[in-house]
Parts: sequence; C-alpha cells; structure tokens
Amino acid sequence: MHIRDYDDADWDSFWPIFREITAAQETYPYDPNWTSEQAKDVWTSPDHVVVAEEDGAVLGSAGMGANRPGPGAHVATASFMVGSAARGRGVGRALGEYVVGWARELGYAAMQFNAVVETNDAAVHLWQDLGFEIIGTVPEAYEHARHGRVGLHVMYRRL
Amino acid sequence: MHIRDYDDADWDSFWPIFREITAAQETYPYDPNWTSEQAKDVWTSPDHVVVAEEDGAVLGSAGMGANRPGPGAHVATASFMVGSAARGRGVGRALGEYVVGWARELGYAAMQFNAVVETNDAAVHLWQDLGFEIIGTVPEAYEHARHGRVGLHVMYRRL
Repeated sequence: MHIRDYDDADWDSFWPIFREITAAQETYPYDPNWTSEQAKDVWTSPDHVVVAEEDGAVLGSAGMGANRPGPGAHVATASFMVGSAARGRGVGRALGEYVVGWARELGYAAMQFNAVVETNDAAVHLWQDLGFEIIGTVPEAYEHARHGRVGLHVMYRRL
Repeated sequence: MHIRDYDDADWDSFWPIFREITAAQETYPYDPNWTSEQAKDVWTSPDHVVVAEEDGAVLGSAGMGANRPGPGAHVATASFMVGSAARGRGVGRALGEYVVGWARELGYAAMQFNAVVETNDAAVHLWQDLGFEIIGTVPEAYEHARHGRVGLHVMYRRL
C-alpha cells in the first residue's frame, strides 16, 4: 500500500467509497443525495488530495489544507475516507500519519478536525493515538442512521 | 433601525464594513486581501442574508443557514458584521435575535458558531446573553493583529 497524489482518473474508483460512506450516515456530515459531480467538487476542493493505493486499487483518500482563510490559515484540517473492504488494515492510520507530516512540513502550527462523530470509535481512537485531543463536543449535531442524534467532536493537536 | 432581506444593490454599502472588519484582523477569520467580488461570494453564500438599515444606510449584515449538509443540516449557523460607526447601539443584538428567531421558525434544533475570537468580548458576551455557551476553544487558532495568536470559541445553543 502506498500513498500518492490524487489524480482526476481516480474519481471513478473513489466515488463508490464516498457513496458507501455517506449513504451509511454514520461518520460524515455530507449529504447522501449528492451526485457524483457534487461529491467530487467537495472531495477535491482541499489544497492537497491523496489516495492510498494497493495493486492499482484505491483503498481510501485524504484531503488536507488550511482550516480557515486569512488569520486562521496557520491551522490545517483534513478529511479521510477508507472503503469498508480495506478497513482494519492500517489505511486510516497511514493516511493520518501522512497528513500530519504534510502539515508539519508546510509549517502549519496545528491541525484541527471540525466534526468527528463521537460514536465513530475507530476514528476517535486513531486521532487520539496520533496526538489529537477533544477540544469540545457539539451535542446532538449529527443525525446518525442507527443511534439518532449524536455529538460532533472538535479535535486538535499542535504540530 | 430595521432588518430586511439583503439585496444585490446593498453590496456597495456593505463592502466598506466588510473591508474595515477584515482589515482590522481582530474578529474574523477571513482573508483581508479578498477582492470585493471574493468577499461578496463569501458573504452572500448562506441560505439567507439580511441587512440592518437606518435611514437608507446599511449598518450591518447577517448571514444564516445550515452549518453542515446532510446529517448535520438540523444545526444552523450565522455570521454578523456591524460597521464601527454603528457599534454600541444594539445592532448586533438585533441581528442576533433575528437569526435565532429565523432558525427557530425554520425548525432548526440548535445554532452553532464555529469560530468566535476569544478576545472579541462584545461578541462573546452578546452570544452568552442570547443563550449560547462555549463548547470548547481551539487554542491559538486566530492570528490577532494586536494580541498575536488567540483562541477560537465554538459556541452553541439549543433552539
């Protein structure tokens, strides 16, 4: 498995992963009804987008860049998606380590996740393991398909 | 002073307020170098935008809508700007009461501010007065022109 820059030709491989994750409505505050074009616009809008690839298959992707413009541009943010077929194999961790390294190299002072679903244990534990702490939790801010309204963590680490 | 829907013709009156506030770099994580066109795109992108007007002069503006798409779309957010000439006259409070009423009427379950500069006492106290609480503070996330890096509060209230 290796991580490389996203290319436009990757969308057709990544779109089923994006669709599966938003349709499940358990981890992402994205609209499950977005078309492929709308989803592509959202996913490819960050400054830098990469994919995790193995034997020519896209296993997941991450996007990263400044969390806010102007006086907030020294804090980075990132988003991650790993397809269900590849979960539990360290793809999320590899992408997480990649984005932290990328942001540090570019001189960002910190990294912030704006909306980590509190019931998404795999993500919460992974980010804590990578040095992120929970700054606060917005209660009932996410309509979870199985659990109803659950909180969204703001998570943060210095770089 | 009354609050009415923003109209495209208002931009020329509001742009100096937007420019003054972003140039001061004390309250908004917006890029002070944005052109009028870029600023207009940002400010008029929310679902609903209003202005506070007195004797034909625009004193301030607020934009409001869903904070996130899909499973996060039941939480509203809003942004406010009041020109320095009109501060201390209750314009911010009137706009704040307007957006809370608007969101409640549309059935939003809560309202969230994502980035309130912690040294912006006027805003922090106003929102607390209107029932918002600080959920958490992202440390050093805002490059303040006079104070250096200060925190950004996430603020929240149920509706």
